Amino acid sequence: MSIRIGIFGYGNLGRGVECAIRQNPDMELVAVFTRRNPETVKTATGAPVYHADLVTEMTDKIDVMILCGGSATDLPVQTPALAKLYNVIDSFDTHAKIPEHFADVDAVAKESGKIGIISVGWDPGMFSLNRLYGSAILVDGKDYTFWGKGVSQGHSDAIRRVEGVLDGKQYTIPVEKALEAVRSGANPELSTREKHIRECFVVAAEGADRERIAEEIKTMPNYFADYDTTVHFISKEELDAHHSGIPHGGFVIRSGKTGIDLEHNHIIEYSLKLDSNPEFTASVLVAYARAAYRMNKEGQCGCKTVLDIAPAYLSTKSAEELRKTLL
Amino acid sequence: MSIRIGIFGYGNLGRGVECAIRQNPDMELVAVFTRRNPETVKTATGAPVYHADLVTEMTDKIDVMILCGGSATDLPVQTPALAKLYNVIDSFDTHAKIPEHFADVDAVAKESGKIGIISVGWDPGMFSLNRLYGSAILVDGKDYTFWGKGVSQGHSDAIRRVEGVLDGKQYTIPVEKALEAVRSGANPELSTREKHIRECFVVAAEGADRERIAEEIKTMPNYFADYDTTVHFISKEELDAHHSGIPHGGFVIRSGKTGIDLEHNHIIEYSLKLDSNPEFTASVLVAYARAAYRMNKEGQCGCKTVLDIAPAYLSTKSAEELRKTLL
Repeated sequence: MSIRIGIFGYGNLGRGVECAIRQNPDMELVAVFTRRNPETVKTATGAPVYHADLVTEMTDKIDVMILCGGSATDLPVQTPALAKLYNVIDSFDTHAKIPEHFADVDAVAKESGKIGIISVGWDPGMFSLNRLYGSAILVDGKDYTFWGKGVSQGHSDAIRRVEGVLDGKQYTIPVEKALEAVRSGANPELSTREKHIRECFVVAAEGADRERIAEEIKTMPNYFADYDTTVHFISKEELDAHHSGIPHGGFVIRSGKTGIDLEHNHIIEYSLKLDSNPEFTASVLVAYARAAYRMNKEGQCGCKTVLDIAPAYLSTKSAEELRKTLL
Repeated sequence: MSIRIGIFGYGNLGRGVECAIRQNPDMELVAVFTRRNPETVKTATGAPVYHADLVTEMTDKIDVMILCGGSATDLPVQTPALAKLYNVIDSFDTHAKIPEHFADVDAVAKESGKIGIISVGWDPGMFSLNRLYGSAILVDGKDYTFWGKGVSQGHSDAIRRVEGVLDGKQYTIPVEKALEAVRSGANPELSTREKHIRECFVVAAEGADRERIAEEIKTMPNYFADYDTTVHFISKEELDAHHSGIPHGGFVIRSGKTGIDLEHNHIIEYSLKLDSNPEFTASVLVAYARAAYRMNKEGQCGCKTVLDIAPAYLSTKSAEELRKTLL
C-alpha cells in the first residue's frame, strides 16, 4: 500500500514536492490544498486541488501532510494546527525560532499521537546533519558553513525595493580563497566579508540614476554593507534569459585534529550543487515523509528533527537490503 | 558519570581509540586488553593493560568495549563473543560478509540484552551513511565512491611479497578527470581503470632486477592488473622519511535529477581528507560508543549499524542544545 501524501500550499516548493512524489513509487499524492480559488490552480501532474478550508476533512485519506508555506507567517501557525490531524513535515528555516516552533508542534503532536518533523531541507536539514556528525567525530575542531553559489530570495527582494529598480537577482558566492584556507586545515577565523561575496544583476528603470542605485544597494545595512558587493545593470531580457533559475548550494566543512599531540589533521567536507533549490528541498521533505509515516506506524509521536531520525527510515529498501548493498 | 570504555586489541586502531577517548571528556578509558604479554605493551596515555583472558572479569567496570582487531579473523569471532558480556563496537569492513557478521552479533546481543554496533568507521561507516542519504533524496540518480589519495595496506602488503622487494607503500589515487565528469552531472559509466590509479614506492634489494619487479607488480591480478600503475624505486631512507604516514580519504558523490521532466541536476558530494586513517576511524568508533551506551540505557539491544542510529545519539549535547546551536 502506498504512503498517501497531501501538500499544503502550492508555490515553488509545493510543485517540487509534487514532482518528487512522482519519483517515489511507494507514494501517492492524494490532494493539494491552496488558499487560492482551487479552480485557478493547475497542478504540474494533474493532482486534485482543494481549498485549504477542506483540509480537516481528509484525515482518513492522507497519511502525511507536507507543508509548503513560508517560515515567516505560514508555518508557525499551520504546522501545529495540522499536527492535530496529520503526521506533518515542514521546512521551517528561521534558525533562531526553531526551539519555539519545536515546542509548539511537539505539544500538539504528543496530544494527537502524530509525528511532526520540522526544519527539513538542506539548511536547516542536511547541513545540520553534517555539522552534527562532523563535530561529534572530530571533537577538537571547527565548523564552517558556506552558502552558494546561489540565489538568495531575501537579498533579491531587497534589491527590488530600491527606488528605480524594476527587477533584480542576487547571488551569494563563497570566497574561493576562504574555502581553500579552510580545506588546508589552517582553521582560520573568517569575517563575514571574507567568507562570501554578493553579486547583483539589476534591471533599472529608464532614466534612473544607476550610480545612486548601486551605492544604495552596496551600503544597505544587514543585507549588503558587510560584504564586497558588485552590481551589474542588465536588460530585462538578459535577466529573464540568464537569471531565471533558482540554483543554490553550499559547503559544510569540519576541520579537526586527532593523535596523542593532536598532530594529525582531518577535513570532512559536504557540499551541494543544486540546479533548483525548491526541488531539492522538496526531495528531502519527501524522504522524511516516509520516515514520519514509518515512525508513526511504530507508535512514535511528537516533534522530531532530522537529528532525531535514524537514516534507515528514509530508504525504501529493507534493513537487510541496505546492509547488503549500501553499507 | 563517565562512560567507561574498554579497548580490545592494541595496534594502530587501538592506539587511535585511546587518543580519541582523551578528547571526549564524558568518557574514561578503563582497560586495554591484548593477547600479547601485557608487561611488554606500553600505552600512549598510560592506560592500564590486561591480558585478553581477563576480559570476562570486568563486566561491572566497563560500559562499552571497542574492538580493534582485524576483519579477516579477529572480529568475526571476538565481536559475537564479547557481545555476550558488553555493549560492543567494531569496524568490521569485509563488505561481502557484513550480513553474516550482523546475524552473529545480533543473536548474541539480543540474548545478552546488549547493543552491538558493527562496521563503524568511514567505509563502511560515514560513506555508507552518505550513500544512503544521497540515494533516498535523489531517487533518480547514480552513486559514485572514490577512494584516496591514501595508503592501501593490502596493496602495500602485496608489493612486499614480490621477490627482491625489501619494503614498499602503495597509494590509491582517484582520477581527477573521472571526478570532474561525475561532478558535471554527466552520470558517466566508469571502468575500474578510469576511476583510480595506483602509485607504488618500492625499496628494492641490492642487485635485484628492477624491471622484473615493476613488471611483476603492474601485472599482478586483482591488485594491479586492472589499473594504470606506476612504480618508483626509492631508498629505504626516502621511504621512511616521506611515506611513513597512513593518510587516506575519498569521495561519495550522488548525482541525480528532479523536476517535471527531470530537467534539473543536483550534486551531493561528501569527501574526507585524513592525515591518519586509523585515528579517524577511531574517532568515529568513539562517537558511536556513546550512542551504544545511551541506546542500551534506554533498553535497546541487538545488532545495529550506522544506518540504524539517530544522529543525535552521537553528540554530548542535549537535544535542546543541538536544536538551538546546530540545526
